[in-house]
Amino acid sequence: MTIWCNGQLLAPESARIDPRDRGFTLGDGLYETIRVRDGRLLRIDRHFARLGDGLKLLDIRLKVDENALAGAMLAVLRADGLSDAALRLTVSRGVAARGMAPDPTLRPTVVISAVAHAPPQPGRVMVATVTRRNAASPISRVKTTSCLDSILARMEAVRHGIDDAVLLNGDGWVAEATAANIFAVIDGVLVTPPIRDGALPGIMRAAVMSHMPVGECSLSVDDLARAEEIFLTSSLGIRPVTAFEHLSLTVGPLAMRLMEEL
Amino acid sequence: MTIWCNGQLLAPESARIDPRDRGFTLGDGLYETIRVRDGRLLRIDRHFARLGDGLKLLDIRLKVDENALAGAMLAVLRADGLSDAALRLTVSRGVAARGMAPDPTLRPTVVISAVAHAPPQPGRVMVATVTRRNAASPISRVKTTSCLDSILARMEAVRHGIDDAVLLNGDGWVAEATAANIFAVIDGVLVTPPIRDGALPGIMRAAVMSHMPVGECSLSVDDLARAEEIFLTSSLGIRPVTAFEHLSLTVGPLAMRLMEEL
Repeated sequence: MTIWCNGQLLAPESARIDPRDRGFTLGDGLYETIRVRDGRLLRIDRHFARLGDGLKLLDIRLKVDENALAGAMLAVLRADGLSDAALRLTVSRGVAARGMAPDPTLRPTVVISAVAHAPPQPGRVMVATVTRRNAASPISRVKTTSCLDSILARMEAVRHGIDDAVLLNGDGWVAEATAANIFAVIDGVLVTPPIRDGALPGIMRAAVMSHMPVGECSLSVDDLARAEEIFLTSSLGIRPVTAFEHLSLTVGPLAMRLMEEL
Repeated sequence: MTIWCNGQLLAPESARIDPRDRGFTLGDGLYETIRVRDGRLLRIDRHFARLGDGLKLLDIRLKVDENALAGAMLAVLRADGLSDAALRLTVSRGVAARGMAPDPTLRPTVVISAVAHAPPQPGRVMVATVTRRNAASPISRVKTTSCLDSILARMEAVRHGIDDAVLLNGDGWVAEATAANIFAVIDGVLVTPPIRDGALPGIMRAAVMSHMPVGECSLSVDDLARAEEIFLTSSLGIRPVTAFEHLSLTVGPLAMRLMEEL
């Protein structure tokens, strides 16, 4: 494994984050997970656009040189001998003195690493009871490194031997899974929760929505319980849902089609 | 400055967090800020107790050896020549492969550092409009390193030349300031928001409540706007509020008394 860290390609043991980095002390950062297929960085423009939205919201002053970053990503893949991979780009605000208020002159920290691609497998999903997604926060609309609600929800699923959990927002509407958006076919119509309910604007979510007709509407747990088909989407792929709570589902035709076509 | 990192006392440039540490990649950690006065770690038992609550909630399996950690804190203070300080203890889940679900065998990362104490100064406070505190999440009840909502609120205050911001919860009730609890005297009665509204169970909050009578009740912005006195509390001290939104306040008798007595 090779880690690209602020311009250097290093072995993980040699790569170093400063303990005063706000990414470590305050979760003050952003990330993107990018699917690499046959050596190509899929939908990389969309990832850079979303990263840009996050940098703007958090006022992290990184000048994104897309060519240089893409070059660094390819260098990591080459060093690791990977052409089919999940690539992670992490940007934190950088090393700082203590305190919540950031100094605007901080130099952001940029890290890139990759692992071999493991396609998402069909999985079972439950509703998280331990926590809720903060739909009232703009943080829910960019991909940040302050992930504890998703981690708690995923841990609850794992404790129950379930593959993933759906987070509800404070009003009880379905928001998303712990690192994926959720889609359901209900009364023959493909639907997904709107961003205002706490769904991350997922890159694959957008790809599905421009590939076939999708309705955006608030979904309750009861709505999902009567779905004919459910699947999760992330940049790493489409994951058919084989059980929602105690209800079994079969892998549906839309998930199968999207797995082929996206 | 000296940093204690997993058992070693190091110069900051030599201290190293692995870029794969979940504290850096996912905000998966906890921290405590401890006031040091005349070389003594104030209310250290309470800090260890709250850290324990956080470790339990997140299922981070750190065996807390309180004597060893207190010894490490004193070693940092000695190395830095500090007897009046703000000390920070950070615990992350540790270095891991990618993914939300943590491996239970991870070895947590522990970092301790200190800076000279700067007593909180009287300050002006506004109501954050950019985000809300997630009172529906248990994460709001422990002190974690997933801090982006507080950071956004503090940045909004700084943009307005204001010292701190009050976060409301999703229902519009006052929760807390960005790194402090809030107290107000309304109709002659000292009150503070309850934990269920999204207030962190602050160590100084508890100290105030066991020092004088305090009512816990949900507070609206309008309630604060007619307060006779407002102050913020954190482990670093009492901060009198000299303006709430556009309303000026004088430093009140309770804040003055608490600054003397706690």
